[in-house]
Amino acid sequence: MSEGILNGVRVIEGSAFVAAPTAGMTLAQLGADVIRFDAPGGGLDWKRWPLTSSGESLFWSGLQKGKRSIEIDLRSDEGREQISQLITMPGEGNGIFMTNFPARGWMSYEKLKARREDLIMVVMTGNHDGSSEVDYTVNPSSGFPSAMGPRHSVVPTNSLMPAWDTIMGGLAVVGLLAALRHREATGEGQLVEIALSDVAFATVGHLGRIAEVQLEGTDPVPDGNYLYGAFGGDFLCRGDRRVMIVALTSRQWKALKVATETEEMFDAVAAATGHDFSDEAGRYLGRNLIRELLKPWFAQHTLDEIRASLAGTGVSWGPYQTFKQLVEEDPRCSEANPMFSMVEHPVGTYLTPASPLNFSVSGRVPAKPSPHLGEHTDEVLAELTSAGEQAAAP
Amino acid sequence: MSEGILNGVRVIEGSAFVAAPTAGMTLAQLGADVIRFDAPGGGLDWKRWPLTSSGESLFWSGLQKGKRSIEIDLRSDEGREQISQLITMPGEGNGIFMTNFPARGWMSYEKLKARREDLIMVVMTGNHDGSSEVDYTVNPSSGFPSAMGPRHSVVPTNSLMPAWDTIMGGLAVVGLLAALRHREATGEGQLVEIALSDVAFATVGHLGRIAEVQLEGTDPVPDGNYLYGAFGGDFLCRGDRRVMIVALTSRQWKALKVATETEEMFDAVAAATGHDFSDEAGRYLGRNLIRELLKPWFAQHTLDEIRASLAGTGVSWGPYQTFKQLVEEDPRCSEANPMFSMVEHPVGTYLTPASPLNFSVSGRVPAKPSPHLGEHTDEVLAELTSAGEQAAAP
Repeated sequence: MSEGILNGVRVIEGSAFVAAPTAGMTLAQLGADVIRFDAPGGGLDWKRWPLTSSGESLFWSGLQKGKRSIEIDLRSDEGREQISQLITMPGEGNGIFMTNFPARGWMSYEKLKARREDLIMVVMTGNHDGSSEVDYTVNPSSGFPSAMGPRHSVVPTNSLMPAWDTIMGGLAVVGLLAALRHREATGEGQLVEIALSDVAFATVGHLGRIAEVQLEGTDPVPDGNYLYGAFGGDFLCRGDRRVMIVALTSRQWKALKVATETEEMFDAVAAATGHDFSDEAGRYLGRNLIRELLKPWFAQHTLDEIRASLAGTGVSWGPYQTFKQLVEEDPRCSEANPMFSMVEHPVGTYLTPASPLNFSVSGRVPAKPSPHLGEHTDEVLAELTSAGEQAAAP
Repeated sequence: MSEGILNGVRVIEGSAFVAAPTAGMTLAQLGADVIRFDAPGGGLDWKRWPLTSSGESLFWSGLQKGKRSIEIDLRSDEGREQISQLITMPGEGNGIFMTNFPARGWMSYEKLKARREDLIMVVMTGNHDGSSEVDYTVNPSSGFPSAMGPRHSVVPTNSLMPAWDTIMGGLAVVGLLAALRHREATGEGQLVEIALSDVAFATVGHLGRIAEVQLEGTDPVPDGNYLYGAFGGDFLCRGDRRVMIVALTSRQWKALKVATETEEMFDAVAAATGHDFSDEAGRYLGRNLIRELLKPWFAQHTLDEIRASLAGTGVSWGPYQTFKQLVEEDPRCSEANPMFSMVEHPVGTYLTPASPLNFSVSGRVPAKPSPHLGEHTDEVLAELTSAGEQAAAP
């Protein structure tokens, strides 16, 4: 069984909600020893929804899996001293702290660095000036909710998926690993900072949307489930299920026409109307017409029939699935997928993902359970005492 | 000026669309020398929207910034040999290949590894079995589109933001850096694999949604712009702008009541109706009522007035902004933010983000321009020739 590519790295995590816990969980899934500290009785996300019927948080369980959990009272001097010692514990793989808490006072980089010169500290904030912000307040400002959802909607559409938090969690790990590699080469530690709104607005820039405003003056409006800049749209099947069909490339467009037996029809319609379906811009501009012309084929077939018809054709498509349908119908979300296994957690036994990353030499750490809150308090404090005694030994 | 924490690392990128280009760009922003190869005349994403009025892709520009671009004809034996040599070039920081192309034939890990034993190769696929899939087909299957958008909508709501691609781009860099650290410690290279649907479905699991289905049998339905499991909702302001208001914590809820002068009203309504607004579950269950009771305050104030009223109060909120409003009104998306600078790209000069990661010792590489397609073909081939001559020298 793989111990993971980050075996030997220990990260102390002071966090709540999505971004920082995601970063810690990502590290734990790669084999790092991630120790999350919480106030006795649990932090701000201890009861975050979804909950079980008995009031346990499935959210907390999902994001703490594979970590060790300790309960420490940070309002006490003793608790602060314990966490400071833990963060700055001697040892090559130690001295790494990741947090989305305000990095002030005893928890500041300066104070902790004074105890371990080569400390690596990753601090996640809401905005680049250190002020706070959450995914649900950054997202409305990003521009995306105003450009998605039903056509002609006057109300913007929020995303249910906390994408910015999740992206920031990944980038925080990128920062941590880059800093660790630097420390291993030079002996130097450092402070790594990342802000949620920077992550969101940088992504807006990467995807060309800032340039579009500045160079073209345009501002996109909601366009339903159509793909932007190529053909893609949703279709209702016989039996009330829906599918998403995408034709980004010429090859996908050709495959779609062949599978739905609409090649001749599209040629005739192009000739009759002057529409040019031969490149992605033409297919984007003709997206309403294309969808209208394809609707009957989907309406005549059930999802199962469509699945069978499209298999191996090169058509790019996917079924719409609720979470329940995903879990109950999709073999990619089952133990047939080597990433997933059934794991017994304190809140119950459920299908649990390991890291999506698989390493041919270092392997993949099997999915691990989430801890009981405070499960490892005694164990970790004993390790701390033992490390202190070793350091004091003659 | 910082050369970046990954200065000295060279990554060859064979890619198109979002995920792999995002990974390469993330590396380039940290100072790696990222060389993207494309077919002469450009790859599949060379004209991806948004476009300028003269037909240049702002998408391509955004995702290739800071990279070197080479045009190589992969249908020719010479082109394949050049890319193989480039990927397996001698040198400590070399021998790293990242791709979302089918890793078959001459481009397989085995073939390339035969030329450089310690090769690191990161391969991004659609599904874990290697079959293809794009963000726009994975997302409908993830469950999120069926659980978001307007209440009572029978049509699912796609996200405009390619979240899965962007998350996978970050995780691919995590995998690459972990493998690089492993190689630097042991001399061993390896194949790192990651699949888009694994990234999506693992995230569904991390957020507790798989457990919710399996343990509770529930399947959430679209709930407009309400936050899940706590209070959060959108409000129309005087003058037609909208804001998102969030009260995840008790402190935020208290701040919201104080700022809107509704404390007494909420106490009276709680007493009269039996609603319990004192914890997040109670506020979630009472979200319609809470929003209704707060609406008048927002309707009476303009966005500017609300901005002024809420500043420094601890209320968690954000304005809805279109992409244009983000660029024109939000100081966080301007040169006032150290992450952003105006950069001259081949397609025009626009506000361009550097990495959201800032390193206190290694610094942050200033935002760089995107290349002209093939701008570095001659330069890179000359480096390859020179490396070959050095290797052949007695």
